[in-house]
Amino acid sequence: MLTGEPSKVAKPPTLKRAPAGAAVLRDDVTEAIRGAVFEELAISGYSRLSIEAVARRAGVGKTAVYRRWRSKLPMVIDVVSEVASLGLVLPDTGSLHNDLRMFVHVVARVLRHPLAAQIVPDLLAEAARNPEIAETLAGALNEAQRQSSAALVRKAVGRGELAPDTDPDLALDLIAGPLYWRLAVVRTPIGKDYLDRLAVSIAAALGAAPAA
Amino acid sequence: MLTGEPSKVAKPPTLKRAPAGAAVLRDDVTEAIRGAVFEELAISGYSRLSIEAVARRAGVGKTAVYRRWRSKLPMVIDVVSEVASLGLVLPDTGSLHNDLRMFVHVVARVLRHPLAAQIVPDLLAEAARNPEIAETLAGALNEAQRQSSAALVRKAVGRGELAPDTDPDLALDLIAGPLYWRLAVVRTPIGKDYLDRLAVSIAAALGAAPAA
Repeated sequence: MLTGEPSKVAKPPTLKRAPAGAAVLRDDVTEAIRGAVFEELAISGYSRLSIEAVARRAGVGKTAVYRRWRSKLPMVIDVVSEVASLGLVLPDTGSLHNDLRMFVHVVARVLRHPLAAQIVPDLLAEAARNPEIAETLAGALNEAQRQSSAALVRKAVGRGELAPDTDPDLALDLIAGPLYWRLAVVRTPIGKDYLDRLAVSIAAALGAAPAA
Repeated sequence: MLTGEPSKVAKPPTLKRAPAGAAVLRDDVTEAIRGAVFEELAISGYSRLSIEAVARRAGVGKTAVYRRWRSKLPMVIDVVSEVASLGLVLPDTGSLHNDLRMFVHVVARVLRHPLAAQIVPDLLAEAARNPEIAETLAGALNEAQRQSSAALVRKAVGRGELAPDTDPDLALDLIAGPLYWRLAVVRTPIGKDYLDRLAVSIAAALGAAPAA
């Protein structure tokens, strides 16, 4: 699962051209390469992605890529991590049930984005063979979500809706897991009221009283 | 997530095969090829797997493989589906809480098996680009689990522990999802009591009264 507005993910915003300098890396070139990495990941997947194809798509030479990243792996991890770390900012709705409802709706939307639907499965497949990818990816995927679920639990504890010893990591597993399983693994369509029922179930799982 | 005893997963039991067409296909050859497919999937991944490497590992000619499957995709799907459909047979422990505890322990063990840890992520990555893989894999992964969760819910309803309108698909998402997310996606280690706490949470999520 990844965070950030889908619109920002697919097409990085156009940046003003920075003055070209000898040792300065031009931001617009960096952004063009980042965009090309995403497109190549989506089309070819990690294992088939080549620096050459990325450079061609970005309209730059291979040297421009190698000046920024020493090889394919750090390049891909850096690009994916930056997007994942944009964070999932959830407003305080004033109640655990509404916070959860909003959280699962956002997670479901993110999981339908090509980034989650295609690039993450690729990287997870690579991660099964490469501990460096596994570690960085897990960190990138998990960290922003953990902060969001910790904030959600903290606010609910403050309101007296959850017990002070509620485990925020278990909360995150209960929020992200069922949706990831359903939408990204078995890919079974969800009914219209599924997300609301899921939110109610998660609240009960965490030990909250039913909503008034 | 996949089903079946891990020991059965790596080496599928010998099955009787009906002769396809004129020639009789030898069972021992079929089993050798099936085993080789698993090993090649684990080592090379789906996209790098070749029929030639499978034949070499099985100690047979390529023709022996092509006599059984017309190409790589149906071969892999057939082999993985057969194992996944072995099913997850869970005993009736007499209470929802104990049934759930056993279910999550079995799922956690299966998720640590190489089949789930490596081969399934590979196929999911391919599935993002290939609807045929996506559909067959989802069916294979989901069907046996759905039967298990449906049986669990049905028994609990019969005991008066769950409401008759409990959704068995939501139950499965709550059982399989958090574990899949935690063990196969973000790969964060779980504490000693995590599985038992998860089982208690799932029971509450489904609307059960706390265990006596």
